[in-house]
Amino acid sequence: MGKERLIYLPLGGAGEIGMNAYVYGYGAPGKERLILVDLGVTFPDMDGSPGVDLIFPDMSWLIERADRLEAVFVTHAHEDHVGALAQFWGELRVPVHARAFTANIARRKLEERGYPDDTVTTASAWPEQIKAGPFVVRFLPVSHSIPESSALVIDSPAGRVVHSGDFKLDPTPVVGEPFDPDLWAEVCENGVQALICDSTNVFTPHPGRSELEVGPAIEKLVSKARGLVCATTFASNVARVKTLAEAGQRAGRSVVLLGRAMRRMIEAAVETGVLTDFPKTVSPEDAGDIPRDNLMLLVTGSQGERRAASAQLARSKYRGLELAEGDLFLFSSKTIPGNERGVIRIINQLSEKGVDVVDDSSGLYHVSGHANRPDLERLHDTVKPRMVIPMHGEHRHLRAHSNLARDRGYASALAVNGTMLDLSGNTPKVAEYVETGRSYLDGSVRIGALDGIVRDRIRLALNGLITISIILDEENEPLGEPWCELKGLPEMGSSAAPLVDVLEEDLDQFLRRANSKTLADDDALENDLRRIARQTALEEIGRKPEVTVTISRIQ
Amino acid sequence: MGKERLIYLPLGGAGEIGMNAYVYGYGAPGKERLILVDLGVTFPDMDGSPGVDLIFPDMSWLIERADRLEAVFVTHAHEDHVGALAQFWGELRVPVHARAFTANIARRKLEERGYPDDTVTTASAWPEQIKAGPFVVRFLPVSHSIPESSALVIDSPAGRVVHSGDFKLDPTPVVGEPFDPDLWAEVCENGVQALICDSTNVFTPHPGRSELEVGPAIEKLVSKARGLVCATTFASNVARVKTLAEAGQRAGRSVVLLGRAMRRMIEAAVETGVLTDFPKTVSPEDAGDIPRDNLMLLVTGSQGERRAASAQLARSKYRGLELAEGDLFLFSSKTIPGNERGVIRIINQLSEKGVDVVDDSSGLYHVSGHANRPDLERLHDTVKPRMVIPMHGEHRHLRAHSNLARDRGYASALAVNGTMLDLSGNTPKVAEYVETGRSYLDGSVRIGALDGIVRDRIRLALNGLITISIILDEENEPLGEPWCELKGLPEMGSSAAPLVDVLEEDLDQFLRRANSKTLADDDALENDLRRIARQTALEEIGRKPEVTVTISRIQ
Repeated sequence: MGKERLIYLPLGGAGEIGMNAYVYGYGAPGKERLILVDLGVTFPDMDGSPGVDLIFPDMSWLIERADRLEAVFVTHAHEDHVGALAQFWGELRVPVHARAFTANIARRKLEERGYPDDTVTTASAWPEQIKAGPFVVRFLPVSHSIPESSALVIDSPAGRVVHSGDFKLDPTPVVGEPFDPDLWAEVCENGVQALICDSTNVFTPHPGRSELEVGPAIEKLVSKARGLVCATTFASNVARVKTLAEAGQRAGRSVVLLGRAMRRMIEAAVETGVLTDFPKTVSPEDAGDIPRDNLMLLVTGSQGERRAASAQLARSKYRGLELAEGDLFLFSSKTIPGNERGVIRIINQLSEKGVDVVDDSSGLYHVSGHANRPDLERLHDTVKPRMVIPMHGEHRHLRAHSNLARDRGYASALAVNGTMLDLSGNTPKVAEYVETGRSYLDGSVRIGALDGIVRDRIRLALNGLITISIILDEENEPLGEPWCELKGLPEMGSSAAPLVDVLEEDLDQFLRRANSKTLADDDALENDLRRIARQTALEEIGRKPEVTVTISRIQ
Repeated sequence: MGKERLIYLPLGGAGEIGMNAYVYGYGAPGKERLILVDLGVTFPDMDGSPGVDLIFPDMSWLIERADRLEAVFVTHAHEDHVGALAQFWGELRVPVHARAFTANIARRKLEERGYPDDTVTTASAWPEQIKAGPFVVRFLPVSHSIPESSALVIDSPAGRVVHSGDFKLDPTPVVGEPFDPDLWAEVCENGVQALICDSTNVFTPHPGRSELEVGPAIEKLVSKARGLVCATTFASNVARVKTLAEAGQRAGRSVVLLGRAMRRMIEAAVETGVLTDFPKTVSPEDAGDIPRDNLMLLVTGSQGERRAASAQLARSKYRGLELAEGDLFLFSSKTIPGNERGVIRIINQLSEKGVDVVDDSSGLYHVSGHANRPDLERLHDTVKPRMVIPMHGEHRHLRAHSNLARDRGYASALAVNGTMLDLSGNTPKVAEYVETGRSYLDGSVRIGALDGIVRDRIRLALNGLITISIILDEENEPLGEPWCELKGLPEMGSSAAPLVDVLEEDLDQFLRRANSKTLADDDALENDLRRIARQTALEEIGRKPEVTVTISRIQ
């Protein structure tokens, strides 16, 4: 049996921004007792995962070792950190720890799936200790774009690890605790073995700006507006929602929250006491009685999501409210790369309605929730760890962050999902590579990303489909002619005859000439029918569709 | 018969950036003689047009009036201005006019489809006149990101129209003519009825920068590089390709052009004399004999296109060349909104190889080819038209540009595709709304965007497919059991039995109980089978798939 060691294993979040899931372990190799930090989702797109509802990390490795798992700790309530918890909890069945606001959100998710009330334990911030096997864990407050975001201070016999969570260094975050450099320095003064650190904004060269800075600009914009004002941001950015609501209130506007997430987040923030003085809101129904220029709508859908309130308002009405010429629509948000098309679609629809759109291109109405490059340097130097391990980033972010740390004198390693690091020594060492990947929530079923199901859907979308049915009698003679149906294919091809007729004719000719051996062999027959159909389609319409063949034999 | 009038009708390009196609006409209403300016494509995406090869404007309106069309004028050789010419020329059959470089590119496209050599007439720049019915047209040079881009000066009995084409105001464009403010003022001094003007960069607040400015920064970057250097930009940006090649040459590197478009564009520029002193290049094969740190690759695929040289180099090898740790990859380009995912994929793949990627986030290595807001103001005031009609933009661009013009004292109108304007008076007036849209090149077939073909493909991708086959005998009794096939669907559902078995069982039960009237009626039977299959799927896998039903009746 080997020497006891401290390990770190990202199962998600190291190789993408999204679906965070980080395992820590301590013990003899293969017998480490484990904790899990965060269990999040990422979102599907039409390019790579059409029809999929949510994307999770493949948690097989941990599920197979659930007997070694002590607890789950959730750093904050963003979907990419907590969104998969309810999906996998039934296979893990260990206590979950989170601070009040995060716990409130996590509990709602677990309750929806019928899990017991006491699954999530509400933790207090530092210095409260939570014991989990060989670990002692504390929640160390840090500023981000959601209330009560926390770093985790994870003590083990091999030393202290600081897991940053998502963070920025904000002295005035409007809602929640400011970054407290003195507390951080105190926590770290006796030496930190490893800092596992958010990498999202490593490419942003200037220091981050405070949440407080956007208030005056938003207030000025809203005070000058004449028609209805509608603003969107992430609902979980409670500080921003508060800033927007207060700007509306000061301009004499009644505030309306639109979209399920918007109402739920504010509710959670009020319930847990992190939000104490939010302006009174009116319901969409009551808003109908208020003059348009006295209304301020705060809506979901800052990323152009098709079903969110912003998209619905851009298309037509939403809950009786409608935007019109001279209204103002504010994106108090940044478009996440990949979401541009959806956001631009909304802006153009609003333009067609004569609505004036203000986005963040001026930099006035939004600040990021993540630490920029100089902020990362500052955190490194506050924590002064023996090693910096970048997490929460695509490969390019992890690589740049790792290089930054090394250039400034810290040991570092670029560990993507599945890379198990031994953090026990003076430098991080790769202990093992573990198979990882993605799983999909597809309707109500969890499927593997590599099962071929979604690949088939992409092929259908790119190539269209021909369905062929033939019937053979007891002597393997065709009964009637082959029957074709098309899906997603042009009706007419180069012969200027319906494609379906040309296909049926060609397949019929083949069947008439086919020898008895082929006709008796389902596989051979299917292959030949498919090959002929694809060849005919190529000649007629210039593409090779997918083909489904049904051979029925009458006995 | 009404009074003669001057009309403007965008069929593409006014409502999107892409697929430009602008009609001008002069004559009595409904009898105007017409000219067409540009005939371009736009590019499909997985979200809205999966499987489609190219997107064209719907040219039906013009094709139905081809007898009134005098000529086509092409402002420059970008695909969104010339890419659909060959596709539609057979239905228009009128002379095409373009300057030498543009004509070279257009001719290659027409020749590929077997159209005669003399289809395209090479035009000289201002003051050469081209007569086309009631119009006299001249090519007025303007700077852009491709050689010999031109505005068109279109004279009619109702006055002079200046159609800007795509443009920027560049005094030092490296290749091609600088913007000549004196010539422009002279052209416009006797009064311009209307300026039809590029809107792409109306949201960019600062004046545009010259192509010449990027040279020193690129040269510095390349001179410091140690490994192989690879740079990508639009191949048609001949000036940029030259700047990059020269930076390589000065650093003692041999230049390799990779990607078909890269070689073709440089060839066209040399053939037509717009490019006279391009550094000598070596073939990819010969590059194998040259030390890596003496190589400079100039490659296609700046927008992350999956099949372009950049994507292939990021994935693995391309034509024997391979990138490695310590190499430099430069995006001397801006990512067009919507292409972010593809570009980021490449950057991450390069990061995995240890290649250092430099993009344009610093603003040092790329300048835009379009006029920014202050440049638009300058052009308006140089041309001093009676009216400014924004073109080449999404709705938001056209609206902002139109507001800008009006705020500064010009009459204006926001005319999206299909809006026919009468430009004859003091202000633009809507004369008519014409039905427009998009057509797709789908394999070798041209289909309509609203034909339902692509919609079906999107549904297949989002929902998956169940194929049902049943056979009925002469008495309408089922012969054997129903047969199902799945495409793009999970194999197992909530019953923990194969979905296909559960479906077949439910459908079989239905068939056993179905009354003789239903069994005799194909439509009723199909509807019932579809409904049951969808309901079963919903219970089993939480989604309602597409369903294809084949009912075979044995006679």
